[in-house]
This record gives sequence, C-alpha cells and structure tokens, in this order.
Amino acid sequence: MADGDHGWQPACPPQASHDAERITLAYGEGGRLTRRLIHERIVRRFGGETLAALGDAAVIDFPPGRMAITTDGYTVTPLFFPGGDIGRLAVFGTINDLVVSGARPRALSLAMVIEEGLPWAMLDRVLDSVRDALDITGVSLVTGDTKVVPRGAADRLFLTTTGIGEVVFPMPGPAGLEVGDAILVSGPIGRHGAAVLCSREDFGFDPPPVSDCGSLLPPIEALWQAGVPVKCLRDATRGGVAAVLHEWAIQSGLGLTIDASHIPVTPHVRAVCELLGLDPLHLACEGTFVAAVDSKHAPLAVEILQAHGCDAATFIGEVTCARSTPVRIRAASGREIPLDEPAGSPLPRIC
Amino acid sequence: MADGDHGWQPACPPQASHDAERITLAYGEGGRLTRRLIHERIVRRFGGETLAALGDAAVIDFPPGRMAITTDGYTVTPLFFPGGDIGRLAVFGTINDLVVSGARPRALSLAMVIEEGLPWAMLDRVLDSVRDALDITGVSLVTGDTKVVPRGAADRLFLTTTGIGEVVFPMPGPAGLEVGDAILVSGPIGRHGAAVLCSREDFGFDPPPVSDCGSLLPPIEALWQAGVPVKCLRDATRGGVAAVLHEWAIQSGLGLTIDASHIPVTPHVRAVCELLGLDPLHLACEGTFVAAVDSKHAPLAVEILQAHGCDAATFIGEVTCARSTPVRIRAASGREIPLDEPAGSPLPRIC
Repeated sequence: MADGDHGWQPACPPQASHDAERITLAYGEGGRLTRRLIHERIVRRFGGETLAALGDAAVIDFPPGRMAITTDGYTVTPLFFPGGDIGRLAVFGTINDLVVSGARPRALSLAMVIEEGLPWAMLDRVLDSVRDALDITGVSLVTGDTKVVPRGAADRLFLTTTGIGEVVFPMPGPAGLEVGDAILVSGPIGRHGAAVLCSREDFGFDPPPVSDCGSLLPPIEALWQAGVPVKCLRDATRGGVAAVLHEWAIQSGLGLTIDASHIPVTPHVRAVCELLGLDPLHLACEGTFVAAVDSKHAPLAVEILQAHGCDAATFIGEVTCARSTPVRIRAASGREIPLDEPAGSPLPRIC
Repeated sequence: MADGDHGWQPACPPQASHDAERITLAYGEGGRLTRRLIHERIVRRFGGETLAALGDAAVIDFPPGRMAITTDGYTVTPLFFPGGDIGRLAVFGTINDLVVSGARPRALSLAMVIEEGLPWAMLDRVLDSVRDALDITGVSLVTGDTKVVPRGAADRLFLTTTGIGEVVFPMPGPAGLEVGDAILVSGPIGRHGAAVLCSREDFGFDPPPVSDCGSLLPPIEALWQAGVPVKCLRDATRGGVAAVLHEWAIQSGLGLTIDASHIPVTPHVRAVCELLGLDPLHLACEGTFVAAVDSKHAPLAVEILQAHGCDAATFIGEVTCARSTPVRIRAASGREIPLDEPAGSPLPRIC
C-alpha cells in the first residue's frame, strides 16, 4: 500500500454523494476517500496483519533460499466470463507462473487501475473473486495500490498482480530437454480462449464454453511430492500450447512432435474452433499446463496428474532432434506437418 | 515475464508493417511480436541474467531475514514533465517506498499496459528513464509483463512496479511517536505536484517548476549509517506533507504542530499555489520525505541530511499531546490553526 493510502479515519462520516453506485475520481486521489476504499473494501475483505499495517511496504518473513518473482497485468474483456473473472484470473495466473517455475507461492500484491464510473458492485464482485482464489491457494495478499483514472482513460478495470514464492523444486528448464523426452498436457486445451471469445459474441452455445481458469498448485505439488523428475513446466496461456512448444524448441535447439489424435479438446472448444477457423493449439488455457519428463517417468506423471484432478492428463508427443520446422504435428496417417506459431494471439485482451 | 512472452526467434525477419512508428495490438498478444518487443526493447536495454532467462518467474537469491514488498500503479499525465517522466517516477516511487520502510531495495518488476498507437519513440524514452533510474539506485529489473490494449482502452501508458527489499533498519513507526519528538522534512515541498500541474496547463512560468522526482536512498542510507534512531519516515507523495502528518496523528493517537515559517517552499511552488489557491502542504512530492526523531537527535539528523544532498532539510514541527484537531499549523504570530486534510488530492493522475 503506498502513496498516502494508509491508515483510516474512524470518524469519517458516511457521505451520500460518494456512496452512490459508482466509483468517483476522488477515491483514487490519496486522501480520506482512498483510505476509506482501502479500509472498507480491501482490509476488511482480505484481513491479515501484514496488509492491515498499511505501511509504505509490507514486511514479511522469507525463508533463506531462492525466491521466485513474477508480475502480470490483466486487461481481459469482458471482466466476467463463464468460469471466472479478472480477479480469479489475476490470482491464479500469477500463482501458476510461480508454480510452473518450481516455487511454492507465498505472497501476492494487487495494483488496480479503476476507470471512474465503475460500479461498486462490479469492484466488489472482482475483489470477492480475488479473495476466494487466494483462499483456495492459501496465499496472502500483503500489499496493493489503487488508482482511479477519469472516464475514458482506462477500460473499466485493470489489475496487476505480483507474486513471490519459495523455489522448492528447481527444474533444468528447456535447456535440459533431450531427444526422446515425453511431452504431456494436464487437460483439455484452449478452454479459456474459447470461453472469453464466446462471452464477447453470442455464437449460440448453450451452455457456453467455460474457462479452465484455476490453480495449478495441487497437481504440480503432487508431482513434486512423488519426486517425478520434471524437466520443464509451462502454463499454456497467451498463444496456447503452440506457443509453449515453439519456445521450448527454440530454447532447447531441438524439435518437438505431437500427435493430433492425442490432444485433448472438449467438444465445445472443437465447435468454436471449427466455427471460427481457429486451432485449439493456439487458444489460451488458464489452468492447464504442458510438462516435459524423461519418457520412462511419463506413465507415472500421467497417473499422478489423473489422481489429482487432471482427469484428461495425457501424453501428447516427444522431443526429437533438430529439424528445419521445430514443431510438427503428426496426423493419424502418420504424416507430419509443421505447426505454425501465431504472430500474436487470435484474441486481444484474453488475459 | 509471463504468459508466453519468453524466448526469441532469432530468424524473425524485419516486418515493415510492424516496424512503423507506433505500437500495434499484435505486439501485446503473446506471440512472436511480443517476444520481439521484449527482446529488443527490454532485455537488450536492461541486461541481467535473471531478466534474460525470461522464465515464467524470475529466480533470485534473497538473504534470510525480513523482506519488504511494495507495489504501485502509475497513471501520471502527461507522461513527461520537467524533472521526470512516468518511468523515472515509477522506479523512484517504488524504491522510495521500500527505503522509507527501512529496506534496502534489491529487485524490481515492471508491468506495462500500452495503448495501441503509442509511438515507439515514447516507449523507448520511458524505458531509457527506467534504466537510468535503476542504474542510479543499483537495483535490477528482474521480471516484467507487457499488454497492449486497443485505442481508447487506456490512456497511452500505465506502469505498475513492484519492489522487494531487505529490511535493514526497522523503525517503530507512528505507534512509537512520543510527545516532544521532532518532525523534519528533507527539502522543499510540493515540487512534483506543481511541476505536473504546470506541464498540463501553461501558466506562463519560464523556466517551469521542476519535479523533485528522485531517489531517497542516499540521504536515508546516510541516516542509517550514522545510527540516527529514526522513529518513522514517509515520502510525501499523493496528498503531500499534510496527508503524512494526518496519518501519523491518527496512527499515534497524538497531535502534530508545524511552524508555517519553517516549511521550505520554492518561489515557484509558492507562486503556483498562490495563483491556483492551493496549499503547498497538499501538493505531492516525489523525492522529499518527512521524518520523526527524538528531539535530541534532530540537529544531527538535519546535519546529515544537509551533508547528503538535502540542502534544505529542516525541522518543521513537533509531536504534541492529543487534541480535537490532530494537525495544526502555527503562524508567525504564534496562533495555531487546524491543518485540513484534503478529501482527495487537488490533482488527479499526479502519479
């Protein structure tokens, strides 16, 4: 919490003009109303001694060792979609980035840029989601910041979350990949992209596709506990599974081949992709990851994932020697064709 | 760095349509162009092994002990003003929040929300400022995130910086204040607010007022080194010195009285305030802090500050017993009047 957002004046009387349905600029200007917003909407909701201290910085104990830090801005539109909202997305997105880096999440910060006129009810709903997602993962919100900008200077609400965690399971990363290593996915791909797309335009799906937005901590913690020597992990967010595979190919200097018939795709995602001419491998996931393990550990890894909520976890391909097209997809016929890396996501503001 | 922003494809050829003067949406979509932006504009500029690794999270060593974390969003307008810009402001603002919390800054993350159409030259200028400010303070950029939103969904550029530091000088904070303690300021007040205000509207000042935007690490480090038992420190940002005094009064349950004649104000800031009917005590500073020390240490503290770049550092008032109006200002006549706490800053988007 910074910039004079601290403390709270208990004697501050209710002010009808400021208690209307929408957030006004004055709530972001660092004075009494900002303090009130922080006390009434943040501190009460999130509790915690560290947050309640509202110093210029939060002070926490951190165990000796290596620390992981990640930061992400969230500008998703719409703010609410089937399976989640910007608050849930921000918490799980940041926590998942720590987890796939081999770190156990410890603390989160939350910075908000709010457009003047955002309904209080909408902010409350997002903050409730942030709290629920934190509760699920057992991570504390320790500090934050609030800015309110004039109407038209932002699109409703942007969040930026920073997470820190303790590295408990260091991995070699893509540089450690070897020919023959197995590539796994933890579940059906492209669900977040399909859900956001269908919540922007009505394509007539009933029920609509639901985002996979969720925590990767339980299945990955299970892999750690079982001592599976995972080589690399990556949550397949913007750019989807295709982006992860291309990055690994580039960083390892090797090739990757996946089997078209092995890729788990829900009927919903398949229908959306067929309708719009998209490839599920290019659509974002927000609760699904790609893993690389030595092939002899692949069956155990799949078994553990399936036993920890990832029912559709499966082997999808393997690392090969370097080739002119780094990532290929093998059809049922056995024919291999290059898998394109998109220049950008097919969807702006997906997260 | 997150969400598929990793790695870089060296074979990526120049693409004239994307190399124009302005940033397009595709640069924020997580694919090849996002990687190119990150490699060419961020990694090359900031260097550092941790950043260059571009994992989902940065991994750093952190010494055992207490850690301070702070986060701040920056939405200042205009992006450039005399004495600084949004990049310099973001780095020093976050570092100063750590320093006034008794922490030595160790690492910074940077998340950007860019409006489609922002000129590349403007982004480069801001990123150069970020780099220069980091160089001044010796802090590393370890991770970041980039989003590009469609025209009209944000106002050019928002930054969110998160800083972590090692607590080296724990202080009792406002709860440790006692009647008779001395209140000091490190320099002339209200300079940032006046500079931003005059860069929005031409009030005819030539030269214009210049922001105090800068690092508080050198003077505060000097106080630590000298072993001055500082009770609390606060950078007087949004809400100015008045906000800090009100917070300390509320949190300590005591009163504060300052002397009008002791408050350092530049002729420029005084002129701006007279022209617009503002109080310099309510205008933001971005490189000036308020400190409370036992009165017997006040002369030494002032002497040290003056010897470390804070030429105008001075005693401005003292802690008193509790009263009905917590913060008062004493005129030359000796008469005390209450110092108002503004409901909000007189300026939106000051930081």
